[in-house]
Amino acid sequence: MNLILLFPKDFLHDDRVKLTDERRVKHIINIHQAAVGDTLSVGMVNGKLGTAEITQIEHNAIYLTPSLNTPPPPALEITLILGLPRPQMLKRTLQNISCLGIKRCILLHSHRVEKSYWQSPRLQENQIQHELVLGLEQGCDTRLPIITFAKRFTPFIEDILSKEIKPGQALVAHPYAKTPCPTSINNHIYLAVGPEGGFIVREIEQLAAIGFEGITLGPRILRVETVIPYLAGRLSG
Amino acid sequence: MNLILLFPKDFLHDDRVKLTDERRVKHIINIHQAAVGDTLSVGMVNGKLGTAEITQIEHNAIYLTPSLNTPPPPALEITLILGLPRPQMLKRTLQNISCLGIKRCILLHSHRVEKSYWQSPRLQENQIQHELVLGLEQGCDTRLPIITFAKRFTPFIEDILSKEIKPGQALVAHPYAKTPCPTSINNHIYLAVGPEGGFIVREIEQLAAIGFEGITLGPRILRVETVIPYLAGRLSG
Repeated sequence: MNLILLFPKDFLHDDRVKLTDERRVKHIINIHQAAVGDTLSVGMVNGKLGTAEITQIEHNAIYLTPSLNTPPPPALEITLILGLPRPQMLKRTLQNISCLGIKRCILLHSHRVEKSYWQSPRLQENQIQHELVLGLEQGCDTRLPIITFAKRFTPFIEDILSKEIKPGQALVAHPYAKTPCPTSINNHIYLAVGPEGGFIVREIEQLAAIGFEGITLGPRILRVETVIPYLAGRLSG
Repeated sequence: MNLILLFPKDFLHDDRVKLTDERRVKHIINIHQAAVGDTLSVGMVNGKLGTAEITQIEHNAIYLTPSLNTPPPPALEITLILGLPRPQMLKRTLQNISCLGIKRCILLHSHRVEKSYWQSPRLQENQIQHELVLGLEQGCDTRLPIITFAKRFTPFIEDILSKEIKPGQALVAHPYAKTPCPTSINNHIYLAVGPEGGFIVREIEQLAAIGFEGITLGPRILRVETVIPYLAGRLSG
């Protein structure tokens, strides 16, 4: 937690915050070992960054006076279209997405996504939000990514995605592609990453038909939790 | 396990392999659901890649006839000098290093590394090797990285590292640096990454004194398990 993220419900007044949840209170007391008069790095969810002075510490509550003046860091200009990862990978994947500054991710069903993954409690909105918040707190950002689901591959690709993307704007990571992944892209990119085992040939063809260019990351097969930071590092400006 | 890694002890003869350990045997039977006559992707540790035909399956053993003709993928030309991560992060960090193709990593003590981390059983050679093997099996590589320890910062930097690096060859990731991280480096790079909390100013100065250039990854603070793939994606050719 490099940043304490504040939410509207934390505000008693514009300039007075009361934290009561165990997670943040314990972190400030035990990890920061903070005392009255200390300042913390804070950010308002979907708002500005700044500092907050601790004005009072009670057993289960901490009072802060925040000062929020700095805009959050720029987004990473990637819309991620991601084959739904297995539930135990989803947690870290969401944290990575949020921490790296990706602001939009569509979790996509595809042939090699097990249908049972869609039943996971980790896809409940509050659980997703929790992981995204952890990522923002790590990455010192305030803007929550938007995560949506596309449970039917073809209608999503053909009816929705095809209307959004412009030529030269969409990449799909695919081991059999020949084009190496570009570096330091400056425009917004739609990036498709398959599930474990990858997209099948027909899916790659459907993506190609609406303008996705296949790119290779070389001969190594990377886990989703590795490939997202890898691609973020490679594509970021 | 995208590749079954073979070890000299697995070979009955040059062309006959017997796997008896539960991990690989169970994986081949339960995950690959393989039968006699099927072929598997295999690789000889520190040797070539290829395929192996399953010739016999017993309760606790699988016999293979391997054919190893393909060189492993090229290394990622990075020597990683890494502030020792906390034990629970070490596991994934070692898997990432191995999977991404980094062939040499020095785990370094520095001011913000807790001394107790050096006592972790996860630093035992067999545990390190196990994580590295998992990374090779994921990344389809055979060459084990060399992991060494540098428990004293200054002697390592001044007496050892200073004699190895050449001008323009060494980078240190540091949030206060102004130079953005370069992309697609083609020569071998020495890359220093601090522990959680980063290197302290004096350590950055010591690294600068022997030729390390500070580079920034932008305003976001990334976990070690995120920053290594990020840097690998960015720096790889």
